[in-house]
Amino acid sequence: MDAFVFGSVTMLEVLAVFVAAVSGGLAAVRKRFDAFGVLVLAWTTGLGGGILRDVLIGDTPPVGITSWRLVVAALAAGMIIFFFHPGLERMRRSILVLDAAALAMFVLQGTTKALDLGTGALAAVVVGVLTAVGGGILRDVLVGEVPLVFADRQLYAVPALVGAGLTAALWQLGWLQLWTEVMVVVLVLGFRLVSLARGWAVPPAGPGWTARWGRG
Amino acid sequence: MDAFVFGSVTMLEVLAVFVAAVSGGLAAVRKRFDAFGVLVLAWTTGLGGGILRDVLIGDTPPVGITSWRLVVAALAAGMIIFFFHPGLERMRRSILVLDAAALAMFVLQGTTKALDLGTGALAAVVVGVLTAVGGGILRDVLVGEVPLVFADRQLYAVPALVGAGLTAALWQLGWLQLWTEVMVVVLVLGFRLVSLARGWAVPPAGPGWTARWGRG
Amino acid sequence: MDAFVFGSVTMLEVLAVFVAAVSGGLAAVRKRFDAFGVLVLAWTTGLGGGILRDVLIGDTPPVGITSWRLVVAALAAGMIIFFFHPGLERMRRSILVLDAAALAMFVLQGTTKALDLGTGALAAVVVGVLTAVGGGILRDVLVGEVPLVFADRQLYAVPALVGAGLTAALWQLGWLQLWTEVMVVVLVLGFRLVSLARGWAVPPAGPGWTARWGRG
Repeated sequence: MDAFVFGSVTMLEVLAVFVAAVSGGLAAVRKRFDAFGVLVLAWTTGLGGGILRDVLIGDTPPVGITSWRLVVAALAAGMIIFFFHPGLERMRRSILVLDAAALAMFVLQGTTKALDLGTGALAAVVVGVLTAVGGGILRDVLVGEVPLVFADRQLYAVPALVGAGLTAALWQLGWLQLWTEVMVVVLVLGFRLVSLARGWAVPPAGPGWTARWGRG
Repeated sequence: MDAFVFGSVTMLEVLAVFVAAVSGGLAAVRKRFDAFGVLVLAWTTGLGGGILRDVLIGDTPPVGITSWRLVVAALAAGMIIFFFHPGLERMRRSILVLDAAALAMFVLQGTTKALDLGTGALAAVVVGVLTAVGGGILRDVLVGEVPLVFADRQLYAVPALVGAGLTAALWQLGWLQLWTEVMVVVLVLGFRLVSLARGWAVPPAGPGWTARWGRG
Repeated sequence: MDAFVFGSVTMLEVLAVFVAAVSGGLAAVRKRFDAFGVLVLAWTTGLGGGILRDVLIGDTPPVGITSWRLVVAALAAGMIIFFFHPGLERMRRSILVLDAAALAMFVLQGTTKALDLGTGALAAVVVGVLTAVGGGILRDVLVGEVPLVFADRQLYAVPALVGAGLTAALWQLGWLQLWTEVMVVVLVLGFRLVSLARGWAVPPAGPGWTARWGRG
């Protein structure tokens, strides 16, 4: 990720954290949390995936509690949501696009960080996906709901998985460099946006599916 | 655990993870999760106890995200459940027996691993029990339910606790070797199966109990 | 915290864990958990904040699974609640005061421990607050409720945050010593008790607030 600069890596990371934190803040507002709850949910959603990643790969204390830039980004998102959320609810479409970009950046960065710490390809892929979806899972658990990513059938984790797998493959081939990183980000982002636009869905579990394919 | 071989340790561990993952997959199917959700629940339930153990004892990255064998076992369980779950629901009795065996193996392996890393007996017992019941707790939290192990009054954690305590005692006496390990596994498994068959129950909290014993 | 002795630090820590564990045991009893569930909830609530702290700052295995004193304190609280809870429910007012004292001690101790391990001021503040509120958050998630601290509008986390910030500031100025530590504890405790007595509240998110201040 060191090489992944359009200007400044940090700016991209900060943006990804900010966007993810917005979704946490909105969930907290919907549940009528108080000001503290909104800020914590924004922090957890924006930085939780990275915190899980860092705890799992043993890089403690996690960047999600040590980096001023990232913590301020998450809390700023929370504060903006707290004061101006009706306006932001109206921007849902723009938020979906930004969120897809955050997904792509989290996957690339999470996978690369794990690989650089020598976890091996399998752990790096798991951790890369977790960086991208972990914050949202924590958000949903903390507001008392079943994690969306497990049940809403959207292609959200699947682009992340493809991106993480591709990143690990490129890394092992020694081909991970600026332009291939940009390619991974574009691919994940594009896959996510196209599947949103077309309504592509993951198959659900249950009798319907099993009736057709199962009946072992 | 190194000595605990009927053929291959790894085969036993893989089997325990597979069986635990089956219960995660079934919970996900009951909640109508999508394919991704079923796989993640299987992974979390099969490997979550071990991941909590490894994070707590500082052995990162946890084997639950680095071992191909274990991850494939968990995901295979998830996939089988996704396609063939009505058949598996009918095998509930066999699954209960296999699950008791997985409980016994997780306890022995979790406790021994912690002791070998020098955590001391107390932490080893906690971590041994957590290896056995942690995956199920994560499963229940992620599907939005109160963890079964806290409230269903079955003797599930109690055999685990007895097994972990016995393992730690044997270790401290220098008596932990193949045949005593087999004895621990048989004891935990037997305790669990007998209490299932006889309907032995943990006392519930609440007015009834207190009326009889409490009223301090 | 080493210097923070009225007799014995350990006694204070043990007391804080005991008091926090009481709230976990009560929550478990209200949900009709079984004996094992009550003990685990007491342990999780009493020691969970410290366990999260230790995992985040990389001090594993966490003191919450290695210290006999602390584990026994948490389990004793659980056992007392299991047998005598109706009596304790009647002591709600005393428990609130003790809980405020536990809050103050957890904040001071958590923040200081992180600073001593070199995490930097930001992480120390986060970790100090988490030591104080983390156990309660885990408790609420495990009984299937939205964490109280996010939504009940009480000034609970805010005194913790003030105390953690003050501790970090004193530490960086080199002014952290017995009497300033006592001052932090008294300040957090007083702030919490006064806000309880006066019903001070954190503003909630939602249309009301936004109608007045928002409309960005």
